[in-house]
Amino acid sequence: MHDLVTETDKACEEAIFKQLREAFESHKFIGEETSSIDGIPLLTDAPTWVVDPLDGTTNFVHRFPFVCVSIGLVINKVPVVGVVYNPILDELFTGIEGKGAFLNGERIYASSQESIENALLATEVGVKRDTVTVDRTTNLLNQLMYKVRSLRLSGSCAMNLCGLACGRLDLFYEIGFGGPWDVAAGTLILREAGGLVFDPHGGEFDMMSHLIAASNGHLKQALVEGMAGLV
Amino acid sequence: MHDLVTETDKACEEAIFKQLREAFESHKFIGEETSSIDGIPLLTDAPTWVVDPLDGTTNFVHRFPFVCVSIGLVINKVPVVGVVYNPILDELFTGIEGKGAFLNGERIYASSQESIENALLATEVGVKRDTVTVDRTTNLLNQLMYKVRSLRLSGSCAMNLCGLACGRLDLFYEIGFGGPWDVAAGTLILREAGGLVFDPHGGEFDMMSHLIAASNGHLKQALVEGMAGLV
Repeated sequence: MHDLVTETDKACEEAIFKQLREAFESHKFIGEETSSIDGIPLLTDAPTWVVDPLDGTTNFVHRFPFVCVSIGLVINKVPVVGVVYNPILDELFTGIEGKGAFLNGERIYASSQESIENALLATEVGVKRDTVTVDRTTNLLNQLMYKVRSLRLSGSCAMNLCGLACGRLDLFYEIGFGGPWDVAAGTLILREAGGLVFDPHGGEFDMMSHLIAASNGHLKQALVEGMAGLV
Repeated sequence: MHDLVTETDKACEEAIFKQLREAFESHKFIGEETSSIDGIPLLTDAPTWVVDPLDGTTNFVHRFPFVCVSIGLVINKVPVVGVVYNPILDELFTGIEGKGAFLNGERIYASSQESIENALLATEVGVKRDTVTVDRTTNLLNQLMYKVRSLRLSGSCAMNLCGLACGRLDLFYEIGFGGPWDVAAGTLILREAGGLVFDPHGGEFDMMSHLIAASNGHLKQALVEGMAGLV
């Protein structure tokens, strides 16, 4: 059993949905906890709030400081507003389509690193422990270790995207992330910071696909080439 | 080139050594920066301050928040005082032999987790990129992924040891850590918190060996078994 659900997740999701429903009666909602009971709803073109009340649940249980609330507003299947808040580090990442990305109110930008050998790469090992998944995971790490400066695994997909958005990280991928609630806000924030979000093959990113890759403005092609043959 | 040295490291080491020399004229000193120029001095039985002015140099360069100053006092080759300070998170870990371990003045303890399948394992991929090292690194990750809940790579050996000391992490190993400055303070703090520090084979830890494994009070044997055949 590598997955954890806490009462805290559920209570937070209910509180967030209640507030948003009062403000936006006609909008739709997708949340991690609701989806874990009812399945993931179809993402339509309607304005939809996509919420992870607690990204980094394992970290939360272990009191490892990368945890956050992630709230994204998606219209026509495209994120247009993103808010990610890490209460431990007191870091509030925000973005609105076309208006830039911010950390605690200060404008942020993805890194300007152009050499993959100087890049810091974030990823996660996920929760699946079948042989195919585990072997692919470590084969990818093996292949990429020769290319990048170092690896960081910190246990929160949304925090990884925001880490790219503020230039702490240069590259990120996750094969098998939990669901759209992990990425709706973070991808908007990263794109508004000048970063790129894409399918691990280099194609268009689909937030319902469970496959994500991301880079600063320069290293997309290098990452796609670095993963080639294994994704 | 996967290693980084900054002017900041050197300036901090000089400042720390100057203060300590004034207070303890007869003591010896081992520092990461001095050693990078002159080689690692022999560790004698004399009181020796073992200092890493900036553990997590890659993180520092990338502004990833796991960086710290690590200062240990070693007497008869055994650490007896340890101080690790992360200025980004404002976390001060301290310990004195026989007097317990503390985080910002509050007593801390290693986790009580007894099942390796619920354990959060920290490690690092280091800086060497020869095939033997990279393959061993990812083979170890592969073998251990089946046993533990998840992996964290956060880029600071001393912070990993302190993470165990306050129960955020349950297990840690690093094959090829930089030198005694990475571990002198952290191992004392972890042991004072009830954790265990050992050779990856389960034998006695030697801070000059570049091989470290650590656990809470319960999971040493499970970690040694989990690494068997690959260390």
